[in-house]
Amino acid sequence: MADNKKRRRKDPAGDELPFKNKLKPDSAIMETLKQFSASSSSSSASVSQTLTLQDLSLPFRCREVADLSLSSVQSNIESLILRIAHSILSGHGFSFDVPSRSAANQLYVPELDRIVLKDKSSLRPFANISTVRKSAITARILQLIHQLCLKGIHVTKRDLFYTDVKLFQDQIQSDAVLDDVSCMLGCTRSSLNVVAAEKGVVVGRLIFSDNGDMIDCTKMGMGGKAIPPNIDRVGDMQSDALFILLVEKDAAYMRLAEDRFYNRFPCIIVTAKGQPDVSTRLFLRKMKIELKLPVLALVDSDPYGLKILSVYGCGSKNMSYDSANLTTPDIKWLGVRPSDLDKYKIPEQCRLPMTEQDIKTGKDLLEEDFVKKNPGWVEELTLMVKTKQKAEIQALSTFGFQYLSEVYLPLKLQQKDWL
Amino acid sequence: MADNKKRRRKDPAGDELPFKNKLKPDSAIMETLKQFSASSSSSSASVSQTLTLQDLSLPFRCREVADLSLSSVQSNIESLILRIAHSILSGHGFSFDVPSRSAANQLYVPELDRIVLKDKSSLRPFANISTVRKSAITARILQLIHQLCLKGIHVTKRDLFYTDVKLFQDQIQSDAVLDDVSCMLGCTRSSLNVVAAEKGVVVGRLIFSDNGDMIDCTKMGMGGKAIPPNIDRVGDMQSDALFILLVEKDAAYMRLAEDRFYNRFPCIIVTAKGQPDVSTRLFLRKMKIELKLPVLALVDSDPYGLKILSVYGCGSKNMSYDSANLTTPDIKWLGVRPSDLDKYKIPEQCRLPMTEQDIKTGKDLLEEDFVKKNPGWVEELTLMVKTKQKAEIQALSTFGFQYLSEVYLPLKLQQKDWL
Repeated sequence: MADNKKRRRKDPAGDELPFKNKLKPDSAIMETLKQFSASSSSSSASVSQTLTLQDLSLPFRCREVADLSLSSVQSNIESLILRIAHSILSGHGFSFDVPSRSAANQLYVPELDRIVLKDKSSLRPFANISTVRKSAITARILQLIHQLCLKGIHVTKRDLFYTDVKLFQDQIQSDAVLDDVSCMLGCTRSSLNVVAAEKGVVVGRLIFSDNGDMIDCTKMGMGGKAIPPNIDRVGDMQSDALFILLVEKDAAYMRLAEDRFYNRFPCIIVTAKGQPDVSTRLFLRKMKIELKLPVLALVDSDPYGLKILSVYGCGSKNMSYDSANLTTPDIKWLGVRPSDLDKYKIPEQCRLPMTEQDIKTGKDLLEEDFVKKNPGWVEELTLMVKTKQKAEIQALSTFGFQYLSEVYLPLKLQQKDWL
Repeated sequence: MADNKKRRRKDPAGDELPFKNKLKPDSAIMETLKQFSASSSSSSASVSQTLTLQDLSLPFRCREVADLSLSSVQSNIESLILRIAHSILSGHGFSFDVPSRSAANQLYVPELDRIVLKDKSSLRPFANISTVRKSAITARILQLIHQLCLKGIHVTKRDLFYTDVKLFQDQIQSDAVLDDVSCMLGCTRSSLNVVAAEKGVVVGRLIFSDNGDMIDCTKMGMGGKAIPPNIDRVGDMQSDALFILLVEKDAAYMRLAEDRFYNRFPCIIVTAKGQPDVSTRLFLRKMKIELKLPVLALVDSDPYGLKILSVYGCGSKNMSYDSANLTTPDIKWLGVRPSDLDKYKIPEQCRLPMTEQDIKTGKDLLEEDFVKKNPGWVEELTLMVKTKQKAEIQALSTFGFQYLSEVYLPLKLQQKDWL
């Protein structure tokens, strides 16, 4: 039945799958994982969790937002509007002081391993023809958020846009001002009760509460639990897992969920099915912090795989003001790494040539600080750009559908083969 | 706080929201729903479930597939290969007899209310330069499916492609042959254990088993339960719901899930977050059949909303061979319908002008049999094309974020306002 595959391999040993004979018993791999998990838990407690912007003596001030309670958001809005009323009454009209979110105001801080926003801001006066529309939109968004606080409900950006299409004209405008308002009030976007569409799923050794319901993710069948859009209603996380496995793609997630990989090696498996969305990023961070577990990433061997890893790890430029709340420090690059292609003898026809755009993206990544600070990553990425080859996680299926869960991942874990 | 909104409305009544004063108590609406649910349950038992192709004396034969057990699929493959071996041994070489899936071989059958495949087929000989590659791919896919049967696991189309990139060259080729193989073996694609990526979510008054785990969808918080990719591991459905609410978009789904709409009016809320995927279609059909509940659809008021409704209802042309298993008969168009825009006084600025493409799609739909057989739909669609206006479900947010769950849907249910 599998003779096609055998013919393709050079390995003369009678063993069924390449490298399967290198695998130690699961108990030995478990020992490795327990040590890793313990060391990660102590290091994350001492470093990642406590080091904040305040601890660093940076030569400039930075702007960061925090998770605020609904009542704090409400009173922040009310104080802001009071100041504006005073300003109007004293004959000075009014303007909003809006933090700049432009690239020039962003900075990667190696000590924190994430992108932060510096504290430049600009005035948005009402009595100025170039800013009157934007300041009117700002006032309207503040009013709508105030309504959400009073009602205690969550809405999407799209809902927000539709409450006043005449004023906003285009969702891009209301979305941009929403981020401005987050910065102005010093709170995260989720504190504003404006949530993103849900996309991620989670399965494995995790129990948590979603809006008051207790969810046991070992009992979610193959489909898994949809990650809730509102992180503030998530709590009571409990787990006996030794690590979190962050998976880029749906197909690999399904393979691991069906094989109940989390029962062989206790772990929590999570995916955003492609580009990381805010809900999945918040959920991953919450798991990492509350459970003190190491995070291993399984992504495609292409520049976008590493980019996705970096968004989870150091944040996206677009939301740098909120990087402290959205990022999960110290994610390890487990695979599929460019060096794996030869190491695991992925056949030539399962590798894909990189396009010009891919190569450019790869070279750009090599210039990024968050890549540079990890010599292992630089080496891998350099190899990728040199060989001009990429591969999907799915390429491992060439050795059989279950090669990923039965050989590749166990061997990676056994050899502590992450960077 | 909501004075902006009041100013915008013409309604001079002191009531807070338009049409809220028309709402009867929930108990009255519940009575309406109970009658509807009971009548739908008896009609679906007598009509939709029993009427099959065999009951109709059509002037031509049709090809349909069925859900087969893994062992039946396995033995079907084995018999097919045996016949081929006989053919080769008797000196005739071999060819596959492959059903045609082209548009010319498809037909909408009004009695069944779905698209079916006629029984034209063509030979795919191995010893012919124009078909040798395709027949090799067919043999390889049959072999891979046979492997899946033996192992009892599920894979994605992408996994399948990667097992032999050299032969398949392009996923389009392995995907197309996979559909051919379904038709040839007379079974659904899910019977082949090849599944689509999961996308849909479900929440509300439903309990079911996913891969052996019992899932209570009233206890899935706001995130809901991800719909499993493999319907054959779903079973034991129980519900006290009166209807199924099929929602096109994620944002509307979230609103209803957070407001726990299913506790006010017992229902099951399901969405595929846009285009219907195979898993969600299978899941909806299974709910409809096992629970005998009516299905009400909430989609955008644009041609694509109606098209999405039609894919759930009568199937897509691409998979017409499997329409019997993928379609859910008798879905009612609850809203947002073109006539609702004026009826609910949706402000002009929340309506969008239809593009040329939208209008063309709308006119094309008017020519489709599944629209024509429902005079109410023709009327609504004609109105849409005439006014050249469309609107998203989210447009209802203009009257407040919870207008959808607090006024619009309850009133629709109270007035039995579906088509």
